[in-house]
Amino acid sequence: VWLIGARGSVATTTIAGAAAVHNELAPPTGLVTALPVFAPIPLPDLSRLVFGGHDLTSTPLPKRAEALAAAGVLPAALLGVVTDALEAADADIRAGVDATSDEPPMAAIERIQTDLAAFVAAHDLDGLVVINCATTEAPLRPDPVHDDLDALQGTLAAGRPVLPPSSVYAYAALDAGWPFVDFTPSTGARLPALAALAVARRVPHAGRDGKTGETLVKAALAAMFADRNLAVRSWSGTNLLGGGDGASLAAPGPAASKLRSKRVALDAILGSRIEGDVHIGHVAHLGEWKTAWDLITFEGFLGVGMRLQFTWEGADSALAAPLVLDLARLMLAAHHAGQLGAVRPLAFFFKDPEPGAEHRLDRQWAALVAWATGLSRR
Amino acid sequence: VWLIGARGSVATTTIAGAAAVHNELAPPTGLVTALPVFAPIPLPDLSRLVFGGHDLTSTPLPKRAEALAAAGVLPAALLGVVTDALEAADADIRAGVDATSDEPPMAAIERIQTDLAAFVAAHDLDGLVVINCATTEAPLRPDPVHDDLDALQGTLAAGRPVLPPSSVYAYAALDAGWPFVDFTPSTGARLPALAALAVARRVPHAGRDGKTGETLVKAALAAMFADRNLAVRSWSGTNLLGGGDGASLAAPGPAASKLRSKRVALDAILGSRIEGDVHIGHVAHLGEWKTAWDLITFEGFLGVGMRLQFTWEGADSALAAPLVLDLARLMLAAHHAGQLGAVRPLAFFFKDPEPGAEHRLDRQWAALVAWATGLSRR
Amino acid sequence: VWLIGARGSVATTTIAGAAAVHNELAPPTGLVTALPVFAPIPLPDLSRLVFGGHDLTSTPLPKRAEALAAAGVLPAALLGVVTDALEAADADIRAGVDATSDEPPMAAIERIQTDLAAFVAAHDLDGLVVINCATTEAPLRPDPVHDDLDALQGTLAAGRPVLPPSSVYAYAALDAGWPFVDFTPSTGARLPALAALAVARRVPHAGRDGKTGETLVKAALAAMFADRNLAVRSWSGTNLLGGGDGASLAAPGPAASKLRSKRVALDAILGSRIEGDVHIGHVAHLGEWKTAWDLITFEGFLGVGMRLQFTWEGADSALAAPLVLDLARLMLAAHHAGQLGAVRPLAFFFKDPEPGAEHRLDRQWAALVAWATGLSRR
Amino acid sequence: VWLIGARGSVATTTIAGAAAVHNELAPPTGLVTALPVFAPIPLPDLSRLVFGGHDLTSTPLPKRAEALAAAGVLPAALLGVVTDALEAADADIRAGVDATSDEPPMAAIERIQTDLAAFVAAHDLDGLVVINCATTEAPLRPDPVHDDLDALQGTLAAGRPVLPPSSVYAYAALDAGWPFVDFTPSTGARLPALAALAVARRVPHAGRDGKTGETLVKAALAAMFADRNLAVRSWSGTNLLGGGDGASLAAPGPAASKLRSKRVALDAILGSRIEGDVHIGHVAHLGEWKTAWDLITFEGFLGVGMRLQFTWEGADSALAAPLVLDLARLMLAAHHAGQLGAVRPLAFFFKDPEPGAEHRLDRQWAALVAWATGLSRR
Repeated sequence: VWLIGARGSVATTTIAGAAAVHNELAPPTGLVTALPVFAPIPLPDLSRLVFGGHDLTSTPLPKRAEALAAAGVLPAALLGVVTDALEAADADIRAGVDATSDEPPMAAIERIQTDLAAFVAAHDLDGLVVINCATTEAPLRPDPVHDDLDALQGTLAAGRPVLPPSSVYAYAALDAGWPFVDFTPSTGARLPALAALAVARRVPHAGRDGKTGETLVKAALAAMFADRNLAVRSWSGTNLLGGGDGASLAAPGPAASKLRSKRVALDAILGSRIEGDVHIGHVAHLGEWKTAWDLITFEGFLGVGMRLQFTWEGADSALAAPLVLDLARLMLAAHHAGQLGAVRPLAFFFKDPEPGAEHRLDRQWAALVAWATGLSRR
Repeated sequence: VWLIGARGSVATTTIAGAAAVHNELAPPTGLVTALPVFAPIPLPDLSRLVFGGHDLTSTPLPKRAEALAAAGVLPAALLGVVTDALEAADADIRAGVDATSDEPPMAAIERIQTDLAAFVAAHDLDGLVVINCATTEAPLRPDPVHDDLDALQGTLAAGRPVLPPSSVYAYAALDAGWPFVDFTPSTGARLPALAALAVARRVPHAGRDGKTGETLVKAALAAMFADRNLAVRSWSGTNLLGGGDGASLAAPGPAASKLRSKRVALDAILGSRIEGDVHIGHVAHLGEWKTAWDLITFEGFLGVGMRLQFTWEGADSALAAPLVLDLARLMLAAHHAGQLGAVRPLAFFFKDPEPGAEHRLDRQWAALVAWATGLSRR
Repeated sequence: VWLIGARGSVATTTIAGAAAVHNELAPPTGLVTALPVFAPIPLPDLSRLVFGGHDLTSTPLPKRAEALAAAGVLPAALLGVVTDALEAADADIRAGVDATSDEPPMAAIERIQTDLAAFVAAHDLDGLVVINCATTEAPLRPDPVHDDLDALQGTLAAGRPVLPPSSVYAYAALDAGWPFVDFTPSTGARLPALAALAVARRVPHAGRDGKTGETLVKAALAAMFADRNLAVRSWSGTNLLGGGDGASLAAPGPAASKLRSKRVALDAILGSRIEGDVHIGHVAHLGEWKTAWDLITFEGFLGVGMRLQFTWEGADSALAAPLVLDLARLMLAAHHAGQLGAVRPLAFFFKDPEPGAEHRLDRQWAALVAWATGLSRR
Repeated sequence: VWLIGARGSVATTTIAGAAAVHNELAPPTGLVTALPVFAPIPLPDLSRLVFGGHDLTSTPLPKRAEALAAAGVLPAALLGVVTDALEAADADIRAGVDATSDEPPMAAIERIQTDLAAFVAAHDLDGLVVINCATTEAPLRPDPVHDDLDALQGTLAAGRPVLPPSSVYAYAALDAGWPFVDFTPSTGARLPALAALAVARRVPHAGRDGKTGETLVKAALAAMFADRNLAVRSWSGTNLLGGGDGASLAAPGPAASKLRSKRVALDAILGSRIEGDVHIGHVAHLGEWKTAWDLITFEGFLGVGMRLQFTWEGADSALAAPLVLDLARLMLAAHHAGQLGAVRPLAFFFKDPEPGAEHRLDRQWAALVAWATGLSRR
């Protein structure tokens, strides 16, 4: 498992948690693929996963884990027993792509592919999946070359930086024949040219933006309102986030990416543009924690107005990390089973799944189970 | 449609709303059977429904509707246009069964059956469904005769009052060959002897306790926690209710019925007895409105503790009335289609469906749609 | 009582409510000056107040009142009995100052003063107070002439529009010898040159931004945290507003005025810049209603983190209107008693009182009572 | 400082916290007497306080502190540095009064007095205060001897157990000439006979039931509603508590004591019996934490209905411990200054202060400051 943003909170929790769970120091809570319904499916065991990745920072993983433990997001009691695993992964972290450097895009792509190949060789791996957990990028400025693989390749070869880092990673992974997952709202593989590349190289990809908190609740509740024929009139949300994630998401560029991603499910499930906005605020004191408050106004029989509000208090990395492991296991199995292109049945995991995918949480779940069960029969 | 508790808030809203919707003075918000997926199914149109019922009070329906309008639960603008419908139904309300009188049970049953037959004859109806919307009863004291139809009939013939009013109505309806629905947590047809009677008379029945608010949200959210393998550690609820409903539900007997009913879904979906209680409080000032607050504590990856809380503010009768209409339409169609005994696919509508029925809201919905679609093919 | 924005929600509720209360059709709920502690103070009775004002719109007051009744902010039952009062006031509404017209500032001031004089003469009034309840303006661009009365008068005479409408009204009122109150976050009399004018003309003024909801709760809770020596670490607020008020306040300019005003109390009471922002969102479906959600994180003994959150659901005009009547009564009495300049003891009513005024709600209350009691002794 | 329930959460946090704060390992957050306004008052410094007490359990204080650290209520980093202080106090804990034993009351009283005298002698103390932090008792069954000191003494001498443990401690302390504080809703010194004893022995006493969370917020908000003349129509509260405290408080007897105590402030401030109840629920999973949710419905101008709800999430012992230190310091100073009988100005600290004391938080604060400032002048 190759993680982009390998020294961030999500990646650190992912690596520490995989070690803790496969050593039976913690139950697999939050790990969807640990549910009984997935037992017959030939997914790689957690104990067989090896972690590495790219990052721009140099704080070693064990130190990052200490900070997470101090914030209450990693149990302090686990720190000692997962240090080996963290150190091992830290030794496999390479310098990432820096959007502010003048490294030519093709040089960056080749460098990444060299890193991936070395990782596979060093650990004698029989599969690899690249998962983006790095900081959210601002929305991408459209460019016609994004729509055509030949044009894109020509432009990159000419040294013009038309791809954001997330898409540089996606290109490198897909081109090298490895599956790619975007767990963030960044562009990643969500460009026609990269979709074509995935099909050409016969590899699967999935994304985007892991559905970890408020949007998860939204998807569950929106389906409830729809099935009861209750008329939702407004749905307003406030997300207060601490830490680095909060600071970067509250900046206008990434906020635009995130907010667009958060709107998708509601409109898809309730069938029309529902009034109300999502607001993201940065509150450093919240640290690794996040609080979301949503107010939903709706009408019942004869137009009688009613309201539902909820407050969600969660630790983002503890919600995200098991899903990263789920996606790693499922994508490795999918690749092995010969799946290629966008994997729509993974919509259950994402805020902004492939266009045309299902958005209702219940139907996403059914689609996921049906698809995964299909894998087991190959 | 024959309503027990025909002058209560739910019944009044049901009758007024049916008139408003079929005259296109209000959209069918909250009416599940008005969703497009039910369009191909041959359900009786709202305009064809005729209302009557039993009640112990004498406040006429138009007066009750005025009180509901003053409380903001019925739009004042509708009052004028539904008065005719309310007056017509009020003329078909007969004196109900009084638990405190010494009327022998068989006399009560025969009286009810006479009322039902007269109603059918007067309006030349080609179907009838009896729906209990009366005040919740205390839990029933078990008696061996409840388990055996012959023994029950003998006991009733002997004049021993072993059935609560809700079950007297159920007996009368089923015995006369008409479907029975219990929209309350009372006993109704939920006795082996009455289940046997329904099969013997080849009529369907359904229940119990309409799922109108907090429990609806619970069923949607519990499925979300289950599918994400998040470990719910406690689920506590507080229900504040005004009006007569609040006063009666906060009394120990009915509260016991209600609370048991409210626990069912959670335990069924989350697979173990989750800590936490439901508290019902009476706040007269809330009038026809209800406020529920739920606190859910759960653990994510590595046991990290998180929490979700929600506040639901709704008008119970505006939530219940369209479901009463849905159940009337579906049960009339089911009877017509030859269904008999307990109709498990109607679990979507109930807090405490038949033992063995599905409790997850999403699967209840799928089961409902599949079943109803089957009706259309007969 | 001369209201700027005389056809808005607040003004309409003020005029209708004054009529309802002095005719004993409604109790004086929300009217601070109706509390027993104010009984000995010679405040003008509600029955003696006469209303007029300026506005730019032409929707007559009775029609505006109907809309408020439909929104549930005015009891429908009162509509009939206050129509006369609304019609009488409507006849005394004159065209306001239009920021987009090219009317020279001195011409506008003279026009306003003529309107005020005519109103006083027509009703043979022995006092007048001008209260601004109009839409919030964007923050004022600073100009040196704002600091000096002579310079300001010269600039206005030269036809340069350096004053926003709220300050044009303030100038006109103070210059004519009538007290001025700003119930909005606009500039009003909050300029050194206008403060000097008030002193020169020996009239009192007060402001600004009526403290009607979230900020009221904030001021009460902030004092609690301070007195318990609990360390507030962040205080984040979300305000969702419907109607015209929501649309205008969510626009960047007025939002800036409002948000600055909402920060003042917290910083003043808790002694340092507390982290967290106030967000204003417009949700048209909320109509005349407002919902605010605040999350406060704080530390107790030994740095243990805790949190308080609250949701406030109120009708802004029903909260503001009685305070407008309070301010009218108190300012008329203050003028009568010879008070001049900024009246700091009225800080209880404002989000952003005069610099140097008290911000803790409890001390504001004590200061108000002490000051008002002093008036009674003159 | 002699603590009853000396090995409970509150006492452990009190002792650990006093050591942490006077060694400047933690700021005095939550300690009211650390506010600048108390600086001129000659209160005993935290470094001069010595702790001992009674308890029935034998879990040593350092072990209890570890459990609190695991629950996140004591910072783990402090554990090491306060161990000495905890061990020292633990050595001064003696076996408490067991309500289920047949120890004659006078024997118990003499035993307690011997323990107190030994503690004073061993540490050469120049003052002592006894503070009850033990588990809440059920309401006391009234007995005529409670009203008369002579009768009470006769009855106790005769061996009849008419006093609950909290009052046995109060008797022993007051009779020996030491001040007594009840931080719980138990009876303690709240009996006419014990009040007479305090006056006879010329010692002060105070109580009861520390105002740590929901009731604190209530007292602040109720004053706000009162001063704004807003008509509170209902105030309902739900308290969910974990740990041993939750289990014991949710039991009918102690719950009755607690709930009565929680009602007092509201009725006193808002002037009439406000509708709505307080519900206490036990949720073991909450551990040392407590969540309270309150719904307040109120009317504004013209009877328009509005609502405020709040959720308080706190750690009870972290809220209580600094108040125990405040009360210790203030009572020692009061005793030194010659105060005797019930100290009403300490109402700020209690849910259920002496009859006749002030209940509004703001006035309680003013009374506290005025009284304490008076102490400094002696």
